[in-house]
Amino acid sequence: MNVQSKATEWIYDPAKPVSQAKKKSAELRQSTLIKPPGSLGRLEEIAIQLASLQYSSSPSIEQPDITIFAADHGVVEEGISAFSQQVTLQMILNFVAGGAAISVLAKELGVGLQVINMGTANDIPQNHAVRQFAIDKGTKNICKEAAMSFSQLEQALATGKLIIEESKSRGTDIFIGGEMGIGNTTSAAALSCASLDQSAEKLAGLGTGLDADGLKRKVKTIKKALAIHKHETDDPLECLRRLGGFEIAALTGSYLRCAQLGIPVLIDGFICSAAALMALSINRSIKPWLIFSYESAEHGHQVLLESMQITPILKLDMRLGEGSGAAVCLPILKLACLVHNNMATFDEAGVHSE
Amino acid sequence: MNVQSKATEWIYDPAKPVSQAKKKSAELRQSTLIKPPGSLGRLEEIAIQLASLQYSSSPSIEQPDITIFAADHGVVEEGISAFSQQVTLQMILNFVAGGAAISVLAKELGVGLQVINMGTANDIPQNHAVRQFAIDKGTKNICKEAAMSFSQLEQALATGKLIIEESKSRGTDIFIGGEMGIGNTTSAAALSCASLDQSAEKLAGLGTGLDADGLKRKVKTIKKALAIHKHETDDPLECLRRLGGFEIAALTGSYLRCAQLGIPVLIDGFICSAAALMALSINRSIKPWLIFSYESAEHGHQVLLESMQITPILKLDMRLGEGSGAAVCLPILKLACLVHNNMATFDEAGVHSE
Repeated sequence: MNVQSKATEWIYDPAKPVSQAKKKSAELRQSTLIKPPGSLGRLEEIAIQLASLQYSSSPSIEQPDITIFAADHGVVEEGISAFSQQVTLQMILNFVAGGAAISVLAKELGVGLQVINMGTANDIPQNHAVRQFAIDKGTKNICKEAAMSFSQLEQALATGKLIIEESKSRGTDIFIGGEMGIGNTTSAAALSCASLDQSAEKLAGLGTGLDADGLKRKVKTIKKALAIHKHETDDPLECLRRLGGFEIAALTGSYLRCAQLGIPVLIDGFICSAAALMALSINRSIKPWLIFSYESAEHGHQVLLESMQITPILKLDMRLGEGSGAAVCLPILKLACLVHNNMATFDEAGVHSE
Repeated sequence: MNVQSKATEWIYDPAKPVSQAKKKSAELRQSTLIKPPGSLGRLEEIAIQLASLQYSSSPSIEQPDITIFAADHGVVEEGISAFSQQVTLQMILNFVAGGAAISVLAKELGVGLQVINMGTANDIPQNHAVRQFAIDKGTKNICKEAAMSFSQLEQALATGKLIIEESKSRGTDIFIGGEMGIGNTTSAAALSCASLDQSAEKLAGLGTGLDADGLKRKVKTIKKALAIHKHETDDPLECLRRLGGFEIAALTGSYLRCAQLGIPVLIDGFICSAAALMALSINRSIKPWLIFSYESAEHGHQVLLESMQITPILKLDMRLGEGSGAAVCLPILKLACLVHNNMATFDEAGVHSE
């Protein structure tokens, strides 16, 4: 089955090309800075990549944008999470109240944080600082049917697109997507299994804190979902519709739109990487725009990263999601740019190898 | 031979004990914060460690101090560096002029940076913003004789001690030592070989950018130095005197004094880790005070870290030294503290696992 319709045609639009000229001049500049060639390692690579993405000789991280997409998952009825769907709602309220890890990080980093309700099982109290884009009261149980309908998928992708178009008009120079949704490591693992043709055992992890029995149940659940949707997941869009989540599809849409509009993306952990995998499967041209911030301690993330041939910047044994790993990575990107822009060259410093 | 004298007795004074009470209360607090237990990984460990070191329920990084110790090495006459000793002087001038990587990083991070001349082959121009603690015009060639005399070693250690006592009186809450000295990866590798009973091949790396022939020469040089000083390096202090450098000994002294005065240390790359190894060999009690910032791309650093059973925080393929890797790590420590201090607890947030 193919879910392509007029409403989703935009996802195939090519990414903005990167500037090869700025890449080359950034490489050249790095080679003239007063340090042994290559001695700043990943900092050099980051600065060069950002120079080519931002079409700038002075890459910078001045206007990051953190957007958390939240939604519930019908698959929780299989008993695959240590927490109830009530927690999705409570965490959304915590994001805007300032008590969550990502809230503390965003505040300290001076970065705006917005929270998008893509569809929670429980109602968000009125007048709250959460943006309402709810599609439904959570997805359907992927062990029984497709997570969402064609039009729901279109809507989720379109929300991601809209959010990025707003970011673009604000002058965002790097986008961080975060996610919240009890049950979404199960959805992300199922998507990854189907997409990479890997076993549930390889992709399923402890999520928010399953015990051994819980993990067994999760593996069984993923296998069940994969069996139900077998032979229907070759098309990445259809795969996303059947096994994904509203927040995962919104992330996928946001990543695609970032690359099309020329906004570098800083990818968070396991769920976001699954969304990135789907986005890449849909539209390969976006690859240069995705910067992976860290390797999560969630079992399966390594498999996902390897499949995309990615070595992320950090490895801090984090596995929280929310965009928190990407936020922690932000200062590294900033410093990489500043060092690139502000170090003296050998000529300026009057230093020469002999 | 034993170099212990009254003047160096201070190095054996025990480190300040860490606060087990603050460690426990920080662990407890982490378990109540609104996230799955352990999901912030190294950030949790860092906050708990700093709480126990700073005797504080709200660990913080408000007053870091970066001090670069610079000196020359007689062993350069063996042709083991891609750069001449002139570069030690030029880089010192660059540190204070603001063009070096560490200068850019310190400025952006809002951290004071001081540069200590421990003994360069070439004279520093008068009236320059470099603090003069020069012991000699560089060490002697370790392939021929001991790098320094007893009194020179005492003097280098005492300078490290003095610098930290000044830091203490300024209220420094974390200390970063940096180093500059053409030839000092050779000295650091020789020290590490002698101390760990490892081969020169395992510890010698490309330094500032040797070619294959240069590396062969460096390995040969280290072997020669080890042969000359064989059976005289069991005592770590004597090992440091024979194979070390003025800046390495000053770092060793500074690390020891930090632990004694209760200032956490953020260790930079290969050279600083060799100094940390010497400090630990001299006085094991300082171990909890040392936080290792990153794994350098310099061949041998991994061996050094493993010998101390350390997994550093970052791995960014950096190998510049100057304190630059530690500086890049500083925002991670800061964020770890802020998240620890400012996140809501499950109770405050009204969230409960079911």
